[in-house]
Amino acid sequence: MTVEEVQEGEAKVGWAREHMPVLARIRKRLEEEEPFGGVTVGMALHVEPKTAVLVETLRAGGAEVAITGCNPLSTQDDVARYLDTVDGIACFAEHGVDEEEYYEAIDAVLDREPSVVIDDGGDLVFRLHEERRELLDGVEGGCEETTTGVHRLRAMERDGALELPVVAVNDTPMKRNFDNRHGTGESTLSAVMSTTNLQVGGKTVVVAGYGNCGRGLAEKFAALGARVIVTEVDPRRALQAHFGGYDVKTMDEAAAEGDLFVTTTGNVDVVTGDHFDRMRDGAVVCNAGHFNVEINLDDVEEMAEEHREPRPGLREYTMPDGRNVSVLAEGRLVNLAAPLGWGHPVEIMDLSFAIQALSAEYVLREDLEPGVIEVPDEIDVMVAELKLRTSGIAIDRMTEEQRDYFESWRHGT
Amino acid sequence: MTVEEVQEGEAKVGWAREHMPVLARIRKRLEEEEPFGGVTVGMALHVEPKTAVLVETLRAGGAEVAITGCNPLSTQDDVARYLDTVDGIACFAEHGVDEEEYYEAIDAVLDREPSVVIDDGGDLVFRLHEERRELLDGVEGGCEETTTGVHRLRAMERDGALELPVVAVNDTPMKRNFDNRHGTGESTLSAVMSTTNLQVGGKTVVVAGYGNCGRGLAEKFAALGARVIVTEVDPRRALQAHFGGYDVKTMDEAAAEGDLFVTTTGNVDVVTGDHFDRMRDGAVVCNAGHFNVEINLDDVEEMAEEHREPRPGLREYTMPDGRNVSVLAEGRLVNLAAPLGWGHPVEIMDLSFAIQALSAEYVLREDLEPGVIEVPDEIDVMVAELKLRTSGIAIDRMTEEQRDYFESWRHGT
Amino acid sequence: MTVEEVQEGEAKVGWAREHMPVLARIRKRLEEEEPFGGVTVGMALHVEPKTAVLVETLRAGGAEVAITGCNPLSTQDDVARYLDTVDGIACFAEHGVDEEEYYEAIDAVLDREPSVVIDDGGDLVFRLHEERRELLDGVEGGCEETTTGVHRLRAMERDGALELPVVAVNDTPMKRNFDNRHGTGESTLSAVMSTTNLQVGGKTVVVAGYGNCGRGLAEKFAALGARVIVTEVDPRRALQAHFGGYDVKTMDEAAAEGDLFVTTTGNVDVVTGDHFDRMRDGAVVCNAGHFNVEINLDDVEEMAEEHREPRPGLREYTMPDGRNVSVLAEGRLVNLAAPLGWGHPVEIMDLSFAIQALSAEYVLREDLEPGVIEVPDEIDVMVAELKLRTSGIAIDRMTEEQRDYFESWRHGT
Amino acid sequence: MTVEEVQEGEAKVGWAREHMPVLARIRKRLEEEEPFGGVTVGMALHVEPKTAVLVETLRAGGAEVAITGCNPLSTQDDVARYLDTVDGIACFAEHGVDEEEYYEAIDAVLDREPSVVIDDGGDLVFRLHEERRELLDGVEGGCEETTTGVHRLRAMERDGALELPVVAVNDTPMKRNFDNRHGTGESTLSAVMSTTNLQVGGKTVVVAGYGNCGRGLAEKFAALGARVIVTEVDPRRALQAHFGGYDVKTMDEAAAEGDLFVTTTGNVDVVTGDHFDRMRDGAVVCNAGHFNVEINLDDVEEMAEEHREPRPGLREYTMPDGRNVSVLAEGRLVNLAAPLGWGHPVEIMDLSFAIQALSAEYVLREDLEPGVIEVPDEIDVMVAELKLRTSGIAIDRMTEEQRDYFESWRHGT
Repeated sequence: MTVEEVQEGEAKVGWAREHMPVLARIRKRLEEEEPFGGVTVGMALHVEPKTAVLVETLRAGGAEVAITGCNPLSTQDDVARYLDTVDGIACFAEHGVDEEEYYEAIDAVLDREPSVVIDDGGDLVFRLHEERRELLDGVEGGCEETTTGVHRLRAMERDGALELPVVAVNDTPMKRNFDNRHGTGESTLSAVMSTTNLQVGGKTVVVAGYGNCGRGLAEKFAALGARVIVTEVDPRRALQAHFGGYDVKTMDEAAAEGDLFVTTTGNVDVVTGDHFDRMRDGAVVCNAGHFNVEINLDDVEEMAEEHREPRPGLREYTMPDGRNVSVLAEGRLVNLAAPLGWGHPVEIMDLSFAIQALSAEYVLREDLEPGVIEVPDEIDVMVAELKLRTSGIAIDRMTEEQRDYFESWRHGT
Repeated sequence: MTVEEVQEGEAKVGWAREHMPVLARIRKRLEEEEPFGGVTVGMALHVEPKTAVLVETLRAGGAEVAITGCNPLSTQDDVARYLDTVDGIACFAEHGVDEEEYYEAIDAVLDREPSVVIDDGGDLVFRLHEERRELLDGVEGGCEETTTGVHRLRAMERDGALELPVVAVNDTPMKRNFDNRHGTGESTLSAVMSTTNLQVGGKTVVVAGYGNCGRGLAEKFAALGARVIVTEVDPRRALQAHFGGYDVKTMDEAAAEGDLFVTTTGNVDVVTGDHFDRMRDGAVVCNAGHFNVEINLDDVEEMAEEHREPRPGLREYTMPDGRNVSVLAEGRLVNLAAPLGWGHPVEIMDLSFAIQALSAEYVLREDLEPGVIEVPDEIDVMVAELKLRTSGIAIDRMTEEQRDYFESWRHGT
Repeated sequence: MTVEEVQEGEAKVGWAREHMPVLARIRKRLEEEEPFGGVTVGMALHVEPKTAVLVETLRAGGAEVAITGCNPLSTQDDVARYLDTVDGIACFAEHGVDEEEYYEAIDAVLDREPSVVIDDGGDLVFRLHEERRELLDGVEGGCEETTTGVHRLRAMERDGALELPVVAVNDTPMKRNFDNRHGTGESTLSAVMSTTNLQVGGKTVVVAGYGNCGRGLAEKFAALGARVIVTEVDPRRALQAHFGGYDVKTMDEAAAEGDLFVTTTGNVDVVTGDHFDRMRDGAVVCNAGHFNVEINLDDVEEMAEEHREPRPGLREYTMPDGRNVSVLAEGRLVNLAAPLGWGHPVEIMDLSFAIQALSAEYVLREDLEPGVIEVPDEIDVMVAELKLRTSGIAIDRMTEEQRDYFESWRHGT
Repeated sequence: MTVEEVQEGEAKVGWAREHMPVLARIRKRLEEEEPFGGVTVGMALHVEPKTAVLVETLRAGGAEVAITGCNPLSTQDDVARYLDTVDGIACFAEHGVDEEEYYEAIDAVLDREPSVVIDDGGDLVFRLHEERRELLDGVEGGCEETTTGVHRLRAMERDGALELPVVAVNDTPMKRNFDNRHGTGESTLSAVMSTTNLQVGGKTVVVAGYGNCGRGLAEKFAALGARVIVTEVDPRRALQAHFGGYDVKTMDEAAAEGDLFVTTTGNVDVVTGDHFDRMRDGAVVCNAGHFNVEINLDDVEEMAEEHREPRPGLREYTMPDGRNVSVLAEGRLVNLAAPLGWGHPVEIMDLSFAIQALSAEYVLREDLEPGVIEVPDEIDVMVAELKLRTSGIAIDRMTEEQRDYFESWRHGT
């Protein structure tokens, strides 16, 4: 890596920083109060410019930071190397590492003996519990960024296996209503458009899963003129999709109709060989869920007679009957792992990482019991207020009279 | 009321019944099992065709039903009189009653000594606790339909004043994500368009409150080409509105910009004299919240030099400076109290009333403690499944392998 | 008709007048200049409040006006009687007349020997050419409001049968991009929602024809959460619908999928017995085109075993196999002929009738040759400018330098 | 350029070819009929994969093709070099050439003495008329792709300076309703999102110009949750924007409110120093019109104290008062000239280039007079039909009876 490349990494981080006003406000206070003074924070997050701004913010609050990636393809090397040049920050992430190297980097973070861990997907916390139990005692707690990670933590908690308090950043309204819905929606759309150069309008797009991510995707693809088919296993979500104007079908039915498939279920084998078998010539499949398990790549690799990469991040398979189907970013989350996937918009990560920073501070400050911990409402509301304020938006305040009315029940007709 | 008018009432109920397939399925089972055999159900709901189908369903399950209205302007007299002709049903509702008559009718329902009460807004339950305490012992519990009613019940519970178990039908996902959002949205839009004959496209519409109702309204007005301004007191909701593409302002600012104002806050004095004072010539104000307290009518009546009713349900006031501003349906909820407000779409009430019927059965069957009770998830899911089934929609089911994956946490990268 | 009813008619006209600022500006000038002094204007338009404002405007410019309806069901009697009380205006329209009475009223208008005719659908101009040729010489020309009327006029012109200059008001951008698209869209939506009380969200809506009217309808129904299927005979329009995110199918296919059908083709037999035969139980069919020929009512009347009118303007037919299908407003254009169809929004008609008033003046002023005449661009632009001005909207003006650049061609790269 | 890079160019062209079924059908016929046998076609178009498929199609029809770029930044070098390896094709385009080299490459194309010219923006045709008049006699005619080019041609025609027949491909419905609206809309959106990594939702986006391109952009940005302000000089277009729900303002007003500015006017100095002076800190400005004249770069360069390139294709300027404003792709059309701008979606160019291929054939076949020539309707319709057919969409056909009805005028009521 040349000096110029490191400078490019620094410039990218600068651009992100300018568009993250909420973190900037928090940073100001942290610099004064230094709540992380003498504390090591271990992180496993997508190592790209926005994450770097979170790292800088914690560092400004006094922390020593050790960070690695949470996905082998999402690391931007220039940003990683830039971070590494900063005093008090150690970065072990590298793009395109294999599974062994991936876990070695996680171990390198843990070797620093962090007091707080910030995780995205659960690999760091899981490693700690399974392979590095000797370090558990020194960890005061952690924060988890994603649906998938929180899901894993709850399963651990249910099995009595979770020995730390971990704040479920993902589940708080300011995260889930913004990051999951608008962040995943916009960034996936952008990544799919850039990677394929295909049109959205007029397409039939199959969205698997209608949680916050799926909802955002359906909304945004439809808004650009796609006909959207939703697949779901939950009847209530399925009905919401139906009332939203989307077709709701089983994947078996939808497989034959889709031009583009996006999975957001967090589950395995959502698109399998059976589905690839029915797809139209030219169909494109990608994943916007956390792990690369939703699309069964083994199936398609086995079925295909040949494959090629006509565009970066796009592998096209030719089936025995001559149909071509393509998979983006090797089935990893397309908005981060595709070469043209830049991750969530900067402003969205400003909110999510503001909650991360404040939650990490909360973990340090309070003496929490092991388990999955909710983000305190004050933190959530404070981030909303900071965002409104930095956007120049004023809102109404309840009057005394209105507050009284709201609390009373002796009125009617 | 002539025989022909009663027949018209019956025909309207027939039309609604045909479009309520979920209630039809439930009715079938209730007819067989007669869980309401020997039970009196007391109701205070909007007396119109869809409600009549709920009444019939309970009657089919064996209940004696006594019903009155929950709003002096929402009763459709032909439907009320038709219900009264049915054996086992007594209806005390009448359109346009004054406050005294309104509460007399509620008392008439209570005189029947109901074992279960179904309420919309809380007037029936409140009357029971305040004026008819002697009857409390005989009541096993109740169900409440609206946000406002549940809000009042929770205030009562907080004050230790609630002596019955009351199921918060309003709060369950199948109600709040459909009835509040799509039901209020479509029916308010329809009522405003019919009552004013004004255009939506190109208008500036101010939506006060961004809960489920406000969200639905903002969405639907914007979809027809209006520019929407949202006012809120909650920063997180305000931010959601902002990210949805709406302008977010204080009502003081918005007052001068709006062509149409719709209140959905459930609170008092959302639009007051100060706001009327700033409005544009031709502005129209209406309410889609439960009670007629959101728009301060006294203020406008006092300020205005004269008024007239150029269209049914629309009162136009002329201000001293010559500006005209209009209020729809006397500030009562416009989708039901305006002469051209037909209430929520039939299919939406099929869902909400399915939950009512099953919740009433649940209250009877279980021995519940006093307090605000959540709708059991099984009921909520069952209604979703019945709706999908009667709409001919099939959805995916998780495989064994997927269920295992979802419950485990030992996977990663 | 009582005095009170006539006063109600007057009040409705007053409401419309207040929301028609463009006509108000034009009226001011006409009052000063009196270009219609001594001229009789014969009109056949939907007799409702907005039309009354056009009539008043012409009257203010000096005209004697004789008017009747252009559809037996669209006349609002209170407005008609009110118009008749005004000095210099004679109104022959009456709601619900039969075909003979309909043409008698047209003849009554022609008996006044108009110099200018304003028509909607072509019946007045056609009658003049076929039955009242003796009057042709006295007529200086006319104006036609709708697609259907202009279509008929062009056919007459092609056959050498058109002996008057008639301005095709319908075809001018300020009419077709606003009235046809937004006016028909909003008013049809409103009429369907009021007449049926059914939900739009989650429905499959089949829109037959994708001209300006169909496009507006598709857009608005989809915006409320309907899945829209478009049928077309023109491949380019079909493709526009496809790229807009709609399903495009033949009516034979669509018939089995639709919950609601709206015809906008201007042609005959768009929905016939074959289609009624395939429809789902509960399907609703209506027409938003000009004449009642698009839905073959004879077919459904013949097929049905019985029928009833559960709501005003809604006739429900029971088929031999038990399915119910309903037709709104007897297959006439639902936004005007349904009892709850109030016609286009007021503000839209302000634009269309501004063009009518200015085009009628143009016909009088110029010495035009027989044939279909385009609205002069100055009139079209002037109406746009008046609307912007009365809405308080300022726009940019080209600078000298920009105008030069635009007119030159010697720049590049 | 390595062999591998040329192969990458070839692979990209392959991907495009697979998604251009209309051109594939046309190619089949051209291969059989060879209408371009012995003909040289000279082209100045964006040299990227989709254009390469048009080149191949003409080549398959017998043509010798000489091609260069029509914008110094839109050429993809790997595609250019690949084209050059194909027998019968000469490609002179190179990314990042300066103005002199740009015109040298145009001259190189003209040196081949083409009989037909295909142009995008008018530089080729203009050069022919100004500098290479000796070749004019040998040219049978041309085709022009864009609004800007056609605008220039009409100015030349008005001045009596156009000596060739040139088909205005841009103006035909199948081009303007698809390419300009959906193509520019999607590709600009994609380029802006990739280049900035900023969020669209919640932003205020100022769209300058509300022609087909501006309309598409407004629609798509709003659909993703932006608040859109439109600026216009034409009152009718301004009014359409207003009725579509957008704010309409002058650029002077809008300058202070926008977060993102996109110009689509085809005119000079739409965003100037005065506007940069009022912009918010963090504002981003880009151009989606043809030439780099809409944003006055000289102004901003002069005003700024410093600038940097934190992301490829994004130059950020710091103003004396500390505000940062950024310009994308040096003010050139962002969807093609930004490093992450891939141009219109493949399927859109399939339509536009199908018209190009058929229009070039038409120019050769017919003996056309000099001037701007409309695309014959048969060509336009044929492309629509081919697209429907290759998309598997069947549409209705008029019956005899319907055709008769449509042509007659003797029906009414």
